[in-house]
Amino acid sequence: MSEKSLASGFVSLVGAGPGDPQLLTRAALNRLRRADLVLFDALVSADTVALARRARRFSVGKRAGRPSMRQDTIHALMIHAARRGQRVVRLKGGDPFVFGRGGEEALALRAAGVPFEVIPGVSASIAAPALAGIPVTHRGVASAFAVVSGHDASAYEPVLASIQPGTMTLVFLMGVAAQQNIATALLARGWPPATSVALVFAASRGDGDTWTGTLAALVRGEGPRHADRPGTIVVGEVVRLRAVLADAGLAAGGQEAAR
Amino acid sequence: MSEKSLASGFVSLVGAGPGDPQLLTRAALNRLRRADLVLFDALVSADTVALARRARRFSVGKRAGRPSMRQDTIHALMIHAARRGQRVVRLKGGDPFVFGRGGEEALALRAAGVPFEVIPGVSASIAAPALAGIPVTHRGVASAFAVVSGHDASAYEPVLASIQPGTMTLVFLMGVAAQQNIATALLARGWPPATSVALVFAASRGDGDTWTGTLAALVRGEGPRHADRPGTIVVGEVVRLRAVLADAGLAAGGQEAAR
Repeated sequence: MSEKSLASGFVSLVGAGPGDPQLLTRAALNRLRRADLVLFDALVSADTVALARRARRFSVGKRAGRPSMRQDTIHALMIHAARRGQRVVRLKGGDPFVFGRGGEEALALRAAGVPFEVIPGVSASIAAPALAGIPVTHRGVASAFAVVSGHDASAYEPVLASIQPGTMTLVFLMGVAAQQNIATALLARGWPPATSVALVFAASRGDGDTWTGTLAALVRGEGPRHADRPGTIVVGEVVRLRAVLADAGLAAGGQEAAR
Repeated sequence: MSEKSLASGFVSLVGAGPGDPQLLTRAALNRLRRADLVLFDALVSADTVALARRARRFSVGKRAGRPSMRQDTIHALMIHAARRGQRVVRLKGGDPFVFGRGGEEALALRAAGVPFEVIPGVSASIAAPALAGIPVTHRGVASAFAVVSGHDASAYEPVLASIQPGTMTLVFLMGVAAQQNIATALLARGWPPATSVALVFAASRGDGDTWTGTLAALVRGEGPRHADRPGTIVVGEVVRLRAVLADAGLAAGGQEAAR
């Protein structure tokens, strides 16, 4: 695709990564700087959205307890702006194809004949644990991991029922509100109550913090809740590595030099 | 961590993403540009390694059929260089904590008292399918995905045996050589022979290509093999979306402008 066709109406479905603007890809930064219109999810950090200096910027994502823009309205906005010749960025937390409805948006754009591209991002499913000192895989501990949406019990319960206990690391996105239900479902499936668990909040932001405990503690309601902050739940013995690897995330000093 | 401490001996465990240098994070680019020494895996693209202009650069990763540097030698090199005050980048394909032995390297650095950081990258497990037009999750099709190493049958066979057929998307990294064994194991477990499969090769590089078929075709030995190219196997009905979303990857025209 030539430079010329990018300059005409075009939509980029862009992953914003886990929060820290330094974890944007170079391609994502390029598209933000050139954008005329940015439609961003509520959980994308303000620092990241601000990089789109010349664009009109609208929050369109849903957030716990607040109404969101209808999905078909988001589609219509993107299509309308692209047809008027605008460069549109649809900016999603993490990666656009991990529980982001990015696939639906791509299908809508294709159906409308609007040219688009997908720019993968750093997924919070891997990066949030990593920045808290938890590798999702580790030789001799876990040779696989599953990423599950914790948003809807009717979606995650069959998944949890289908995995034999202790065979892989489990990572739940959007699962903080359901932490007690998730832990109860895992115990019912046969996971040991002493299985290690971490809840990682806003891991790549300055206000990140991490709780570690067990499935049994989550069932008893001892897990933390921060209704307004995105959280990732990690289940499995890789969590124990945090005792050694905590504070393994990005060294803050490098950020100024990277701008 | 202050700017000063980054300037002293320090190791950055950096994810290089799936291949295209535009899918490096800003933090990764910053660390490469400042590095004195880069130890990179064989599958990291030459374009990416070349960004570390002032560094000594050594390939240390293993590649099919060729001997690799011993893991403890890699540890010793990193520790030695950091103690001499160098800025070391350990550059890994995708994300450093997804089957990259990044956790082992972090533990070795911590044990040696060497300051380090982890910079997550765009994982090929999500990005390779995405760039081929396959979302690993999609509303109504897959609400979870599992990422499995296809390198070692003794590791992946118990994982495959533990997942009930059809409940989530499966993504295999390093599994091209084992494609027939993997498909056979899935059929034995009860996955339908007509289950959709994709093999994605070097998805974000100019020479990328994708094969789609079924588990039955893989069992019959009909899948492609490119011994020298990294490949990702995707199993599940999300693969069918590629018929509509093929060529959804990065628009090439944007790359020059991002440099």
